[in-house]
Amino acid sequence: MAQKKCNSSEKSAEKEKAIISAARARFALYGFSKVSMEEIATDVGMGKASLYYYFPTKESVFQAVIIQEMNEFLDETDKILNSDFTASEKLVELVKNRFVFIQKFLNLGALTVYSFHDPKSIYKKYLGIFEEKELEFTHKVIKEGQNNGEFEENIDPKAGITLVHTLHGLRVRAIKRYTLPPGTNFPKAINELQEEMNILIKIFIKGISK
Amino acid sequence: MAQKKCNSSEKSAEKEKAIISAARARFALYGFSKVSMEEIATDVGMGKASLYYYFPTKESVFQAVIIQEMNEFLDETDKILNSDFTASEKLVELVKNRFVFIQKFLNLGALTVYSFHDPKSIYKKYLGIFEEKELEFTHKVIKEGQNNGEFEENIDPKAGITLVHTLHGLRVRAIKRYTLPPGTNFPKAINELQEEMNILIKIFIKGISK
Repeated sequence: MAQKKCNSSEKSAEKEKAIISAARARFALYGFSKVSMEEIATDVGMGKASLYYYFPTKESVFQAVIIQEMNEFLDETDKILNSDFTASEKLVELVKNRFVFIQKFLNLGALTVYSFHDPKSIYKKYLGIFEEKELEFTHKVIKEGQNNGEFEENIDPKAGITLVHTLHGLRVRAIKRYTLPPGTNFPKAINELQEEMNILIKIFIKGISK
Repeated sequence: MAQKKCNSSEKSAEKEKAIISAARARFALYGFSKVSMEEIATDVGMGKASLYYYFPTKESVFQAVIIQEMNEFLDETDKILNSDFTASEKLVELVKNRFVFIQKFLNLGALTVYSFHDPKSIYKKYLGIFEEKELEFTHKVIKEGQNNGEFEENIDPKAGITLVHTLHGLRVRAIKRYTLPPGTNFPKAINELQEEMNILIKIFIKGISK
């Protein structure tokens, strides 16, 4: 067995990875506001000062966690796009994947959704990227379905963006509605959102199918 | 020609009507915050004190205007429901009517949408009634379409509520998106909203049709 080489930058990357992974687990359990840098440091068996060397603020750890979630979402999406599914099945899977991602995102923020919608929030930037990517994927799958004869040829060119905005709108609505005061009935909102997204995507697919 | 009888309560009702109508025109032109009670009083040729006799606050005039708009919306909706349109056409018309109503509502608030979404706002209560009514109408039309063979028999029972929430979500999303800071790009948001509502309803109808 070859001996593993390990230089200092590799070590550093490993430390970072361990911190992100520990922070992610904590955020998912307790939410951003209820997690301290001390707890994260303890989780990875590191002094607080060392942790601050890697991440100067709790926000910067959070951002790293979000980027990781986002990358996993994009990987999952790529898998769906490159699968043997029909275009219809791909649309259903994309919506499912979207839902899982939203749920994870929300858990990290511990069910307080004000941060989710605060324009200055860390989420904001990444949600923008998320929507852009989603739009790209949706267009790709609709095109694919048109090319292979599953979908109508004369679908409105804005059908894809309408679908993405519709899903976005359902999320915004569901979350707004059940978070006054914060956290109230959150699981109900999320279950309803999932159900409505599923109903909508089925009707939508039939609506663009031949 | 019969002489018109006019008792004091009739006179009072007429005065009220005149005030509401004047206030409505002003709110629609300048928006709630930029209209004063003095201006409304002047419009109906009345002293400010007399106006306060009918409506003790600007909010109470605004509420009366909103109730009037709402009643007109419900009348319009009833006309659509009782028309000879097919169920599909009725759904399209309901969405059109909804859009007109939202636009009027927004104009009254002068394009500041914060009030529209403020849970304590006057709008809030009526938007709730609005959504309830809309749900009722949508269910009715879907049922009608199922009975007359236009729509599938096995549509998900929650398709109607999903449609209403979807339209609501699109509105919330569009308005949120383009009102930071208030008023920014408002016409663009409204045009986009209208376009997306139209695309969505067409795909939706095809998606539930036989």
